[in-house]
Amino acid sequence: MLKGRHLLDPMDFTTSEIDEILELGGEISKNPEKFSKACQGKILATLFYEPSTRTRFSFEAAMLRLGGQVIGFSEPNSSSVAKGESIADTIRTIACYADIAVMRHPKEGAPRVAAMYSSIPVINAGDGGHQHPTQTLTDLLTIKSLKGTLSNLTIGLCGDLKFGRTVHSLIKAMSRYENNKFILISPKELKVPDYIKKEVLEKNNIEFLEVERMEDVIGKLDILYMTRVQRERFFNEEEYLRLKDSYILDKAKLKGAKEDMIILHPLPRVNEIAVEVDEDKRAKYFEQAKYGMFVRMALIMKLLGVEVC
Amino acid sequence: MLKGRHLLDPMDFTTSEIDEILELGGEISKNPEKFSKACQGKILATLFYEPSTRTRFSFEAAMLRLGGQVIGFSEPNSSSVAKGESIADTIRTIACYADIAVMRHPKEGAPRVAAMYSSIPVINAGDGGHQHPTQTLTDLLTIKSLKGTLSNLTIGLCGDLKFGRTVHSLIKAMSRYENNKFILISPKELKVPDYIKKEVLEKNNIEFLEVERMEDVIGKLDILYMTRVQRERFFNEEEYLRLKDSYILDKAKLKGAKEDMIILHPLPRVNEIAVEVDEDKRAKYFEQAKYGMFVRMALIMKLLGVEVC
Amino acid sequence: MLKGRHLLDPMDFTTSEIDEILELGGEISKNPEKFSKACQGKILATLFYEPSTRTRFSFEAAMLRLGGQVIGFSEPNSSSVAKGESIADTIRTIACYADIAVMRHPKEGAPRVAAMYSSIPVINAGDGGHQHPTQTLTDLLTIKSLKGTLSNLTIGLCGDLKFGRTVHSLIKAMSRYENNKFILISPKELKVPDYIKKEVLEKNNIEFLEVERMEDVIGKLDILYMTRVQRERFFNEEEYLRLKDSYILDKAKLKGAKEDMIILHPLPRVNEIAVEVDEDKRAKYFEQAKYGMFVRMALIMKLLGVEVC
Repeated sequence: MLKGRHLLDPMDFTTSEIDEILELGGEISKNPEKFSKACQGKILATLFYEPSTRTRFSFEAAMLRLGGQVIGFSEPNSSSVAKGESIADTIRTIACYADIAVMRHPKEGAPRVAAMYSSIPVINAGDGGHQHPTQTLTDLLTIKSLKGTLSNLTIGLCGDLKFGRTVHSLIKAMSRYENNKFILISPKELKVPDYIKKEVLEKNNIEFLEVERMEDVIGKLDILYMTRVQRERFFNEEEYLRLKDSYILDKAKLKGAKEDMIILHPLPRVNEIAVEVDEDKRAKYFEQAKYGMFVRMALIMKLLGVEVC
Repeated sequence: MLKGRHLLDPMDFTTSEIDEILELGGEISKNPEKFSKACQGKILATLFYEPSTRTRFSFEAAMLRLGGQVIGFSEPNSSSVAKGESIADTIRTIACYADIAVMRHPKEGAPRVAAMYSSIPVINAGDGGHQHPTQTLTDLLTIKSLKGTLSNLTIGLCGDLKFGRTVHSLIKAMSRYENNKFILISPKELKVPDYIKKEVLEKNNIEFLEVERMEDVIGKLDILYMTRVQRERFFNEEEYLRLKDSYILDKAKLKGAKEDMIILHPLPRVNEIAVEVDEDKRAKYFEQAKYGMFVRMALIMKLLGVEVC
Repeated sequence: MLKGRHLLDPMDFTTSEIDEILELGGEISKNPEKFSKACQGKILATLFYEPSTRTRFSFEAAMLRLGGQVIGFSEPNSSSVAKGESIADTIRTIACYADIAVMRHPKEGAPRVAAMYSSIPVINAGDGGHQHPTQTLTDLLTIKSLKGTLSNLTIGLCGDLKFGRTVHSLIKAMSRYENNKFILISPKELKVPDYIKKEVLEKNNIEFLEVERMEDVIGKLDILYMTRVQRERFFNEEEYLRLKDSYILDKAKLKGAKEDMIILHPLPRVNEIAVEVDEDKRAKYFEQAKYGMFVRMALIMKLLGVEVC
């Protein structure tokens, strides 16, 4: 039962709860019109204590396409909420005005505190270390829709695998489905942390491979999930410049890939995918953004307990 | 007749006009669904020349819950309106786009100037000294809804009674109803100004008492209205530190209070009400925020001349 | 066929396409109610990389009055879109969420780049040199509605005619209709550029006159289009102070004008039209703002291919 629940961590929901959301998301993606009045009379509050236009737009469009409405702020300055008020008080006040809230906050755990005091569902749209559960739902709906399954897939993850929570969450989420394999493509300095390898992959007997060069493995992949190498993650500028171009996907590298491989990326991309790749039919990262809106529509409906016959 | 009128000062409306708004507000609070399309096709402009997220959200949620729509800005920077344009020109342009406007402005009197040139109703959501008439309407609807009457009440006002316009407006408003008594609880330095005592209370033969300690009077109160002691109101930091904790409501102080006393606060609170009080059934400040939305719904309907059968 | 098209330059559309928009705009202005659900279920994205409250409000009100919805940002800070992402990627993502986009950008050509990569219609709401095609449509609908025709008119343009793109666009647009004459009123330093005179006026055998004093020609005009003299256009402060008051319209100057002349201004005005003129029945600049909303409603409907029977 998802009605009235919060979504704070990608693993807050069971596999069957996630499947329920993905099923509805898939249905919405095929016939959005049918859901255009599902949330009439409902209000979503978007509480962005740090700006994230893309994520905010995705949630707002989701709510509006369900016939609901939106109030909110998009950066801390415009929020008098800052005037020394606690998160607890803020969410209790917001709950007087809105039916569901989305929060993005620079401090890790802030959405969890809000949820403790909230009488309305709270969705974490990214906190401190960028735990970002709706990105994971987005990835899952995209894979399920485009590959037709969440099982028996060989998933390549490429780029900064050390700091990227998006990648960690995706590994955890896909590990819950049968017979998936992971190929982890990164420079040594940015490898997946040990706890993911030990507590998620090895513990569940999941096959995985760590490599340094995309070219060596691209032919095996059903999914190539690219991520950005963020300048701020590096210890020094020199290190950044040495590594940043090592993991760029271009047409040349794509030659060795399967015809039905799909290329995903959480966006925004900087230069980790060459623009020439956009025309390739395997490039699915913009479609992925669209699935992001559909899965948020499904999530909002589920947490509000709204149904459409 | 409230249609087409402005609301600039809490005393702009007669008692019977206020009662008309409160009656509708009460009706809305009991059955909001009934009013969910009352303002369909209408647009509210929220012109916040200084940020006030809470007030803005309350107005926006009010309009959206009436089926209306909202345009606006939430801080001066984002407003090119600043480009040397007069308030008169701004409101005349806004009146081309919207059906009703809410204005918050750092300069006292700005909403009044806007009203002079406006062909649509203008609501003052706080100017310079924070005249804030919809807060007063909020307080009245809350009291009427929770106590069942606006007469025969003993009202305790606690905290900064010198600079707090909210308090002054509430005294004026409640003085128009029969047989209310006021107990004014504040440090000597922050007592209610003389003009309120002379021109409002004494002139109308209203019983009132000035005290320094909440503990001495809490047992007599039907309503305890707490206010924030704002740091910026003090002449120096030392003075602020000496006084700020003197008027904090906690469980211990509450022991002497009536079982059906209600605790109100315009919010945001900082520490003038201890968090432990939140669980007490007499704590009504978050409910008050909800009544704030309902009374704004009523106000918008009345000023637009909209009715629901 | 306007469906799916972009509007980047005022001359992007043929005369007959513009007439089609103006006809619908005129119809909307007479009976806005009829169109109040025309864009139900559609979303407009307002991408303001520099603030322009007035223009943003006009577009947002237009979309909301058509029953549509709006997402967007109103200034660059609040947009994480800035994070090194290309305009191409941004618009492709926006196109996942919205059905039509309005862009204002400090860099000339940015909306054109967006349009190249966009699967949804893009409207330029002002770029670098302030090409601003919907202002031109506003001017045309206002003239057509108030004068009953776009032909056989003597149009006075007054103020900064050198840098003001609004004026250049209006000259180009009105030159496409029959038998219009222009009287260009400006200081020598701010005359209409040569290319307009040669390539637009002389090439099409259009009668025009350049003068320095409004008083000498005001009696001949059917339309007096006033513009602001922007401080930032001047080489130095002294020059600005010498010229800024030279082209101020007041009651005295108006005495010599025709009874049915109309006074237009793109707004905001600073002091180039004295406040005393506002009461004159020939002052139509606020009405013009209203036509701006109506013509944007028409434009949105046409680009979305939406019809109302």
